[in-house]
Amino acid sequence: MVVVMTPEATDADIAHVVEKVESVGGEAFVSKGVVRTIIGLVGDIDSFHGLNLRSLPGVANVHRISDPYKLVSRQHHPDRSTVWVRGVPVGPDSFTFMAGPCAVESPQQTLEAVEMAKAAGATIMRGGAYKPRTSPYAFQGLGEKGLEILAAVREATGLPVVTEVVDARDVPVVAQYADMLQIGTRNAANFGLLQAVGEAGKPVLLKRGMTATIEEWLMAAEYIAQRGNLDIVLCERGIRTFEPSTRNTLDISAVPVVQATSHLPVIVDPSHASGRKDLVVPLSRAAIAVGADGVIVDVHPDPETALCDGPQALLGAELRALAQAVRQLPPALGRVDASALARTEAATSA
Amino acid sequence: MVVVMTPEATDADIAHVVEKVESVGGEAFVSKGVVRTIIGLVGDIDSFHGLNLRSLPGVANVHRISDPYKLVSRQHHPDRSTVWVRGVPVGPDSFTFMAGPCAVESPQQTLEAVEMAKAAGATIMRGGAYKPRTSPYAFQGLGEKGLEILAAVREATGLPVVTEVVDARDVPVVAQYADMLQIGTRNAANFGLLQAVGEAGKPVLLKRGMTATIEEWLMAAEYIAQRGNLDIVLCERGIRTFEPSTRNTLDISAVPVVQATSHLPVIVDPSHASGRKDLVVPLSRAAIAVGADGVIVDVHPDPETALCDGPQALLGAELRALAQAVRQLPPALGRVDASALARTEAATSA
Amino acid sequence: MVVVMTPEATDADIAHVVEKVESVGGEAFVSKGVVRTIIGLVGDIDSFHGLNLRSLPGVANVHRISDPYKLVSRQHHPDRSTVWVRGVPVGPDSFTFMAGPCAVESPQQTLEAVEMAKAAGATIMRGGAYKPRTSPYAFQGLGEKGLEILAAVREATGLPVVTEVVDARDVPVVAQYADMLQIGTRNAANFGLLQAVGEAGKPVLLKRGMTATIEEWLMAAEYIAQRGNLDIVLCERGIRTFEPSTRNTLDISAVPVVQATSHLPVIVDPSHASGRKDLVVPLSRAAIAVGADGVIVDVHPDPETALCDGPQALLGAELRALAQAVRQLPPALGRVDASALARTEAATSA
Amino acid sequence: MVVVMTPEATDADIAHVVEKVESVGGEAFVSKGVVRTIIGLVGDIDSFHGLNLRSLPGVANVHRISDPYKLVSRQHHPDRSTVWVRGVPVGPDSFTFMAGPCAVESPQQTLEAVEMAKAAGATIMRGGAYKPRTSPYAFQGLGEKGLEILAAVREATGLPVVTEVVDARDVPVVAQYADMLQIGTRNAANFGLLQAVGEAGKPVLLKRGMTATIEEWLMAAEYIAQRGNLDIVLCERGIRTFEPSTRNTLDISAVPVVQATSHLPVIVDPSHASGRKDLVVPLSRAAIAVGADGVIVDVHPDPETALCDGPQALLGAELRALAQAVRQLPPALGRVDASALARTEAATSA
Repeated sequence: MVVVMTPEATDADIAHVVEKVESVGGEAFVSKGVVRTIIGLVGDIDSFHGLNLRSLPGVANVHRISDPYKLVSRQHHPDRSTVWVRGVPVGPDSFTFMAGPCAVESPQQTLEAVEMAKAAGATIMRGGAYKPRTSPYAFQGLGEKGLEILAAVREATGLPVVTEVVDARDVPVVAQYADMLQIGTRNAANFGLLQAVGEAGKPVLLKRGMTATIEEWLMAAEYIAQRGNLDIVLCERGIRTFEPSTRNTLDISAVPVVQATSHLPVIVDPSHASGRKDLVVPLSRAAIAVGADGVIVDVHPDPETALCDGPQALLGAELRALAQAVRQLPPALGRVDASALARTEAATSA
Repeated sequence: MVVVMTPEATDADIAHVVEKVESVGGEAFVSKGVVRTIIGLVGDIDSFHGLNLRSLPGVANVHRISDPYKLVSRQHHPDRSTVWVRGVPVGPDSFTFMAGPCAVESPQQTLEAVEMAKAAGATIMRGGAYKPRTSPYAFQGLGEKGLEILAAVREATGLPVVTEVVDARDVPVVAQYADMLQIGTRNAANFGLLQAVGEAGKPVLLKRGMTATIEEWLMAAEYIAQRGNLDIVLCERGIRTFEPSTRNTLDISAVPVVQATSHLPVIVDPSHASGRKDLVVPLSRAAIAVGADGVIVDVHPDPETALCDGPQALLGAELRALAQAVRQLPPALGRVDASALARTEAATSA
Repeated sequence: MVVVMTPEATDADIAHVVEKVESVGGEAFVSKGVVRTIIGLVGDIDSFHGLNLRSLPGVANVHRISDPYKLVSRQHHPDRSTVWVRGVPVGPDSFTFMAGPCAVESPQQTLEAVEMAKAAGATIMRGGAYKPRTSPYAFQGLGEKGLEILAAVREATGLPVVTEVVDARDVPVVAQYADMLQIGTRNAANFGLLQAVGEAGKPVLLKRGMTATIEEWLMAAEYIAQRGNLDIVLCERGIRTFEPSTRNTLDISAVPVVQATSHLPVIVDPSHASGRKDLVVPLSRAAIAVGADGVIVDVHPDPETALCDGPQALLGAELRALAQAVRQLPPALGRVDASALARTEAATSA
Repeated sequence: MVVVMTPEATDADIAHVVEKVESVGGEAFVSKGVVRTIIGLVGDIDSFHGLNLRSLPGVANVHRISDPYKLVSRQHHPDRSTVWVRGVPVGPDSFTFMAGPCAVESPQQTLEAVEMAKAAGATIMRGGAYKPRTSPYAFQGLGEKGLEILAAVREATGLPVVTEVVDARDVPVVAQYADMLQIGTRNAANFGLLQAVGEAGKPVLLKRGMTATIEEWLMAAEYIAQRGNLDIVLCERGIRTFEPSTRNTLDISAVPVVQATSHLPVIVDPSHASGRKDLVVPLSRAAIAVGADGVIVDVHPDPETALCDGPQALLGAELRALAQAVRQLPPALGRVDASALARTEAATSA
């Protein structure tokens, strides 16, 4: 931490800062410049927070230097992690394709969508039973009935289930059915929910808040990790910007930035980032090429009748193009596909 | 609603859209342009949502024309509303000054802060017992113990209490102590929480999501209203932009924009918007002048030791300047101050 | 300046940084932390820039501590400046109301608009002869013919003229007619133009780039100042954000932020910030209350036929409301109006 | 165009709009809804702009439906264009790698950088002689002397030169030396400069304004095209967002969005988008995979001494990784590399 004094700060102001820092066991290094003095702090950063240094007389600003997250940081955990979802890996050695309908609408629609996804190479199925919607008048999901459908489709297809939980009170029931709990973009700062999924004993798919900085996103992961759960997969899904031609702006740079600072796997959701099905295939290719550990996309057997986000659901030619990209690009870039790894793991663990 | 067809759309595509619209009882008016055809839709907008028009062949885009909110709209409720908080009005005929510590830390700190606030003219006290913090390592609030302190300080000062609730599971206990429930900026899209406070039978202070559009903010209010609670006060508290010199950017225009489209009262939080105490007084003046129905600010008897947001808490000279602005400016702009109205109300209801 | 080393930086890396800093006459203070080392730099900041410190091995980041602007900074010029425009002051002791049509369309339209403006209390007239337009198919202004109209209307009304210049090649001709040269939001980083107006010998009205940080805006002013011209008035006119209900988001906080760091006067343009005439009066009131040194607004005798930005031009009742606010609010806040000062100045200099 | 009336609009208001539209030869289709009336306009959109429809009584809003650009639109020019730069193609059938130093500092530094670039597979060299800098105290480029160096290095290496022009007055001299004129991000709305390069008879590399929407970017291209020059290559280089970990946020989606609406080639600048050399290789891979027609990157023989943007310049291992990606990925995605095409073209035209 670095404390920057105002040009008007007195020697007494400087001494006061030093004294405060030393009172909690820290060390303070004073650099007197021509115009300003800066003070470098060494010691336990958490103890410094309690000092409220920015409120002291003569203090212009306080800069944090180290990352505020610990458990999810790559600093003390240099190897990138792999998260296993009912036997399917998500991590640096594989490329995982997750797909399914945005919302679970009926047993048939869900089964058809997941079979399409599986045929295209998906190894994890997605589907929403609890839908956070901007309008209270929009379809809010089937709730537990939707979870039952997901379980039945898992039975039929063999694909593990990732599904969103939007309320801490629903975590137990969702955890009972799902193989991975998804935290959606609107709940990225819902700390009670983050803590609840941290205690649920299931892997978590943590979407980036559409207006969260990467640091805030990693702090959200830290909330989960702090409850003892490090099986977290991060998911970049677009941020809010001024550009109106896409629903959000996919921050593709976030993938290598996260991989440089955290050991957690990171995947990309091109469907929700763009909101346009004509962009899902090129953005998926970009995600693979930038080094993402997977993608998650919307598919629907009949987008015209979808109750949620129909315009971004893939089918037919686009899904085939995506299947081809997922099959061919990762190996060209030195990755194997997750289904192969899953088979190996299954064989090994058998 | 207006459906815009692509230049390549066929007559059959157009007929398909018309047919879909008519199938749910709507009317479709077709305007064939030189390059494109547009179709105006008349009827029940909610029934059109289910049609997934954006997914139909030949459809380029669908523009919504009407506001998506209803209960909070000014359209069928042209008079602006007043919300009463334990006898203190917030609305178009008054100007309400709410103040108190960001976080409840101890009985003494809270009492001192609220006494400062009251002496400066505040008629509603604020104070946080449950604190949503970006870092899991930061102070998270005293919980129910904090609520007890708030109740004791209300007893001592006579000021009604507004306090934040961050988890739907805490709504009953918070509603038991508080006179007004606050939804913070990070929970602006926590729909389960919005519904829970909608059912709690207490007035709600709904802060704008730091990345919510005004329309999304009003949709959040609609979630509360839909559960039967229209005692909602909106609070503009800054939005996230690229400008780094303030914590967020106070969107002062949001006040008249909201007042033009919704009947709900709207106040301003200059402390959290700016994160800088030197800006609280000028921004409060701006809020009064733009026509806000109140302000809510942080005060602390000793910002240097504050456990939360010390750098933005007022004291001494700044608080006196604010008190003066709150006393003098609203009457200069044709408003009376809320404490006078509260007294009148008390006299009337006595 | 503070250099932050990576956790992996070696002693040799640290020594290399120190040596570089000392090679240009600076001093380096090393603070070794548990995880990282930080190095405080003291000396001539410009000489440090040439060192490319961020490229040295072991360097994680470099934080600038001081403001990068000098001539426009309040640090060595603590008194806030007043800029005189043909005898009309813009500065801390007055409140200046500038108004006129967005674009000069004809002698009659301009004269009528300026007479409306003058009747409402305006003491400086605005009007565009060169219009920067997003579309090459939109009206681009009358050019020199427009400047002649402005000069004639100044003759008729006695109001000094501020008008925009969009191309460095036009600076001489615009400076020949205008009393103040305006740099528009789209040219806030057109450094050649900034330098050209810096040499033109006329006061400058520098609008903030719609996507410029306050620091970048002050650096643009520094470009002008560096050419020997400190008669610069800054104008906040809204920044680009995600909020769609206004054309841009008026950053009202920018006014006190600028006043704290620069000695230059700062005014507000509520017309272009919002793009909505129903917001011009409340935002002007907010500008006065927050402490701005003036406002500049669009008026038009017949907005329905305006060739540019008709929807934001005031007339009738709104203009009267604005006139009243400009007359009454500044004195209530301790300011006199600029026309009074202009008269005094005229009397004094006579 | 669609005109949306307010709920309070009268029949006379509606008739007034219709009459106005018909007065300029347009047709108006009225759709009366339960709450609002909407009016679809058919005819010449430019004639409608002059009507100022948003200012008419009873008008709530006016939505434009068609794209405002024409010459650069794909609508009447469905095949994507190839731009030839001194015999090197940039377009849909090739992938073009442009590289060189951010700034021309000396003959030797430029030659070394370009030789590095050429060895890595670059077929067009970049280098700045005129540098737009936020600070007037930063290195501003060597000017014409820099252009001479670029010409000499072209002589030595055979690579065509792209270089930035920042002032309309410099266009003739830059066009005399350069093979392609670059418009930088800060000049994306400098309309006089856009028109000047439109008349210079050389291909143009048009960077996106860091805060321009895609539509505004294409309108900037329209300014150039309108002067008779359609040899324009668009360059996505990151937009300004709230995320601080990269200098700007690369809007990778802009590539397919532009390709869907414009026939112009579009390339990506990962160096300036991110400002971090560790991101240049992954972002270049993403650019190739998303379908960009090329990349442009900074290289420097000694980033530690670079006068501009040293921290983002590649060398050594990173440049080799980039060279490999440029060689292997485009063919894997069905593209040939531009140098091969250039050779073919040379052979054909010989």
